Amino acid sequence: MEEKKKSILDYDTVALDEENHALVIIDQTQLPYQTEILSLTKQEDIWNAIYLLQVRGAPAIGVAAAIGIYLSAREIKTADFTDFYQEFQKAKDYLDSARPTAVNLSWALNRMEEVVLKNKEKTIPEIVERLHQEAVEIREEDIWVCKTIGEYGLTLVNPGDGLLTHCNAGQLATVKYGTATAPMYLGQEKGYHFRIFSDETRPLLQGARLTSFELKESGLDVTVICDNMSASVMRKGWVNAVFVGCDRVAANGDTANKIGTSMVALAAKRYGIPMYICAPTSTIDLSTISGEDIHIEERPAEEVVEMWYEKPMAPDGVKVFNPAFDVTDHDLIAGIVTEYGIARAPYTESLKEIFKKKEEALKAEEKDT
Amino acid sequence: MEEKKKSILDYDTVALDEENHALVIIDQTQLPYQTEILSLTKQEDIWNAIYLLQVRGAPAIGVAAAIGIYLSAREIKTADFTDFYQEFQKAKDYLDSARPTAVNLSWALNRMEEVVLKNKEKTIPEIVERLHQEAVEIREEDIWVCKTIGEYGLTLVNPGDGLLTHCNAGQLATVKYGTATAPMYLGQEKGYHFRIFSDETRPLLQGARLTSFELKESGLDVTVICDNMSASVMRKGWVNAVFVGCDRVAANGDTANKIGTSMVALAAKRYGIPMYICAPTSTIDLSTISGEDIHIEERPAEEVVEMWYEKPMAPDGVKVFNPAFDVTDHDLIAGIVTEYGIARAPYTESLKEIFKKKEEALKAEEKDT
Repeated sequence: MEEKKKSILDYDTVALDEENHALVIIDQTQLPYQTEILSLTKQEDIWNAIYLLQVRGAPAIGVAAAIGIYLSAREIKTADFTDFYQEFQKAKDYLDSARPTAVNLSWALNRMEEVVLKNKEKTIPEIVERLHQEAVEIREEDIWVCKTIGEYGLTLVNPGDGLLTHCNAGQLATVKYGTATAPMYLGQEKGYHFRIFSDETRPLLQGARLTSFELKESGLDVTVICDNMSASVMRKGWVNAVFVGCDRVAANGDTANKIGTSMVALAAKRYGIPMYICAPTSTIDLSTISGEDIHIEERPAEEVVEMWYEKPMAPDGVKVFNPAFDVTDHDLIAGIVTEYGIARAPYTESLKEIFKKKEEALKAEEKDT
Repeated sequence: MEEKKKSILDYDTVALDEENHALVIIDQTQLPYQTEILSLTKQEDIWNAIYLLQVRGAPAIGVAAAIGIYLSAREIKTADFTDFYQEFQKAKDYLDSARPTAVNLSWALNRMEEVVLKNKEKTIPEIVERLHQEAVEIREEDIWVCKTIGEYGLTLVNPGDGLLTHCNAGQLATVKYGTATAPMYLGQEKGYHFRIFSDETRPLLQGARLTSFELKESGLDVTVICDNMSASVMRKGWVNAVFVGCDRVAANGDTANKIGTSMVALAAKRYGIPMYICAPTSTIDLSTISGEDIHIEERPAEEVVEMWYEKPMAPDGVKVFNPAFDVTDHDLIAGIVTEYGIARAPYTESLKEIFKKKEEALKAEEKDT
């Protein structure tokens, strides 16, 4: 079942349809050529969507998996818990196999499994309803985290500012707002008229294909540049702040993010421009001491010399080095923006403070409910 | 007339054939897919070769133009100087129109015209022979300049070093050796076993297509990386020195070179790696006070979002900023390597010294002849 709509803004990136029987996503493999909205009901189609990167970005994958496993659970035809749980686990393992290295995928599926186990005394329809609530909650939490990061981020900039971002830590990687783009969208709502620069982000071009697409569709003023041009736009005085996402933040503030981020940071430092990391607390890992402890994934040569081209863009058989991420040292970072406030140097202290606030907030919430 | 050979190393980038009747070039538009050697005799074919970038790189274009105008002069059928000169000027204007902004093109053609005017008392065959000598001399000068830069550059590195370069300031941009690549080729001859990293150099990919091609063909150990990965290879300790070419060096040492060079320089500074500019004195302009006075050419959006792709890589109509060059500030430069020695900071003094040495060398040469 497919239908076409005009703009991504008519939709969230990942949603459950109104009748609660389909996972609705934007097919990101079609972007920026066409906005195709997929309504997926079958387990196989949801698995494929994750596997084929039709849905991508850690938070978005987590939400898609939660909705996906709920939809699977709905289809289990039994009144017996043992049978139900066995089928549930089968469906969970199947979805989990779509992208074995995506941490958020297992995280969301495990959280859904906990719901099953916590409610095993209840009837199957009651358990399925609790799964529905949990999927909706995971989705709403993601929206809240992004929006709150956006609100904190917005306190760091002014109307008319030039903002630069790298890769896609945008709405398309989350349910709504994105992380690095959240201040941009919230500023847009307030009429801030930012001028955004989007690094194309080689080799996979997430900046050119996805970030510029979603910002342009939302009516923001966005300009695509090659990664090697960010120092030039900074030198021209066109950039007031840099916002990027992250894959992992270490206890000392060192941050792993898409390859090239550290070079943006060096240029920002040179030109006195603050660089902010937008980091949901789920990406901050206090057990990682520093950037030196973060493993950097290396990816195939084909991504660099073949992927987007009609013919290979380098001589046959030439060696290629293709690290997917790099580490930005904490001294290049002006602030780490989380859903529990903005951490500033020294990060070893401030990040601990952020987690204290989070703990207190969660305790207060538990008391309320 | 065309023939195919196996490797560019069998040829110089630009040459006059042994019978003095054809311009022989490597068709760079076919690289890195095939090495096609063109022997061009007709004026129209030579014009096309320059216009279509079959021959490219400022020094190589200058040499091609000198050989081209000599070949045209050979074909002028008259014994009368006035007639000859009129035809010569026609041919010169025609060749000059192939790339109106290429400084070396007019420079070489003007130098050839001076030969005609200085020898107007001689017979036409004698004038044509002087043109032949001048074309050969322009070509030999280019080889000498590159080789001498390579010899000075080689004093800055050690066997086994990791070297990084950006864009193509290679043999393919000159007759032989290149500028930034000259220390690499000369080191190769001495068995230095460098490990070379070649930035792909967006948007036109000269690093991936040309630099890695010519180094690999020459048996050097070369690895292609995206521009945004140079900080990563430096952080790993894989790079001992950076060598790049330049388009213009200002009196204070600020250097304009291919877009992205300044970001390589910032990374090199961060990791304590010396960055050297390989600059024939013809590219050093003491009348340009600093980088602020260098005009940066902006090029079409299509180069960034369409050129190499089957489909545009960004949403239709998105804004693109595409500066062709950037300025590397002199404080990021460890040395400027010329054919008259290596200039070190403060450049305002040392570059003047370089020109003094050049003047003295040219005077000594005049005395010799």
